[in-house]
Amino acid sequence: MEKGVLLYEGKAKKIYQTSEENQLWVSYKDDATAFNGEKKETLAGKARLNNEISSLLFAHLQKSGIESHFIKKLSETEQLVQKVEIIPLEVVTRNIVAGSLSKRLGMEEGTPLKTPIVEFYYKDDDLGDPLVTEDHIAILEAASSEDLAVLREKAIAVNEQLVTLFDELNIRLVDFKLEFGRTDDGEILLADEISPDTCRLWDKDTNQRFDKDLFRRNLGSLQEGYQEILTRLGGASCTK
Amino acid sequence: MEKGVLLYEGKAKKIYQTSEENQLWVSYKDDATAFNGEKKETLAGKARLNNEISSLLFAHLQKSGIESHFIKKLSETEQLVQKVEIIPLEVVTRNIVAGSLSKRLGMEEGTPLKTPIVEFYYKDDDLGDPLVTEDHIAILEAASSEDLAVLREKAIAVNEQLVTLFDELNIRLVDFKLEFGRTDDGEILLADEISPDTCRLWDKDTNQRFDKDLFRRNLGSLQEGYQEILTRLGGASCTK
Repeated sequence: MEKGVLLYEGKAKKIYQTSEENQLWVSYKDDATAFNGEKKETLAGKARLNNEISSLLFAHLQKSGIESHFIKKLSETEQLVQKVEIIPLEVVTRNIVAGSLSKRLGMEEGTPLKTPIVEFYYKDDDLGDPLVTEDHIAILEAASSEDLAVLREKAIAVNEQLVTLFDELNIRLVDFKLEFGRTDDGEILLADEISPDTCRLWDKDTNQRFDKDLFRRNLGSLQEGYQEILTRLGGASCTK
Repeated sequence: MEKGVLLYEGKAKKIYQTSEENQLWVSYKDDATAFNGEKKETLAGKARLNNEISSLLFAHLQKSGIESHFIKKLSETEQLVQKVEIIPLEVVTRNIVAGSLSKRLGMEEGTPLKTPIVEFYYKDDDLGDPLVTEDHIAILEAASSEDLAVLREKAIAVNEQLVTLFDELNIRLVDFKLEFGRTDDGEILLADEISPDTCRLWDKDTNQRFDKDLFRRNLGSLQEGYQEILTRLGGASCTK
């Protein structure tokens, strides 16, 4: 397997072609960004932590029957994934009120929801990734209503698996963002990453944050928080 | 019929008790506000124009079988309405992209939608009346999913009537906001007002604005625009 040309550079990852037409080489970056790129820092070790955690979580989901684009970990900071065409929606599942939901509804962070909810945000940096309804998504032609039903169903299935997993590690899965893509044969597949960059993860006893809010809100060391998640997941804790 | 104590003063109307338990006295104000109250002016004649237009539109809808809280016009600036408990949602129906939808989706104002869409905003000044999904509305316990189906259906029915009415007056109904309330026996009834304060109304030939965007965007005389709507609707054009 050879790393080919750079196809795309995002805020947190670089995506390269490979010698296999349907496979991509993902290289995680040490960059942390928040508030649509307004806050930006390079945090040594973040690439490794997110790659390790995301690889463990995708592997766990696959064992539970939830397929994704993840093929294998290539190195500490790199993954091999299946090529998909990303659907331009952030699919956010929430179990507990936090972040933008707290602001939108005027509800205190930490309020548990009676049932998980799924929100869609339109992936567009210039627009600030706005919340969109199913009607908006139809106007944008970003996904059909049948697609949205599939996205909801898959998001809830991932939520059930991850809530159980993190609960055993004494961690509350507050909310998380997923992205999905379409394979060549039209299948909708879980893609992107699942990491403390894309989840809110709180210690069940202390409500200590182990996620990107550490960086967004200057609550402490991002690397220490992410390392705690990796350690509880049973991953390597060495910092090489 | 006697006007009783002031029950509520909003940005554009005052609501009084009457000698009838289930009836309220609505007095329109000359105040214009925009951007959640940040921009504010008193515009002589606005109360009369909105009361006349809203009375004509409610009467037109009632003739078409769409009931509302409207009972009768009491004076140039006052209406008698049925008392309802307002559901805290702004129900916005859109035929053409404008305003916040243009900003949210990055689409040019004036783009026609293939089919009308209905959006819900949570009525809360402190929160800036945020867009909410059906899941958010469930969390807020603002309305049940059955209620939302009724609101959508009624909004679309009003839209069909008003698009036809305004089309005959060479006016495009771009979008409009409705509010609904519950009667004592639980019926959901169209309430609040329908006026150029709550609709976008564009001349079909020139795209000239006859609505509150005149005030929001400093596009010209609000009173002249609203008077044009009243005149085309066949109402009195005297300014007494």
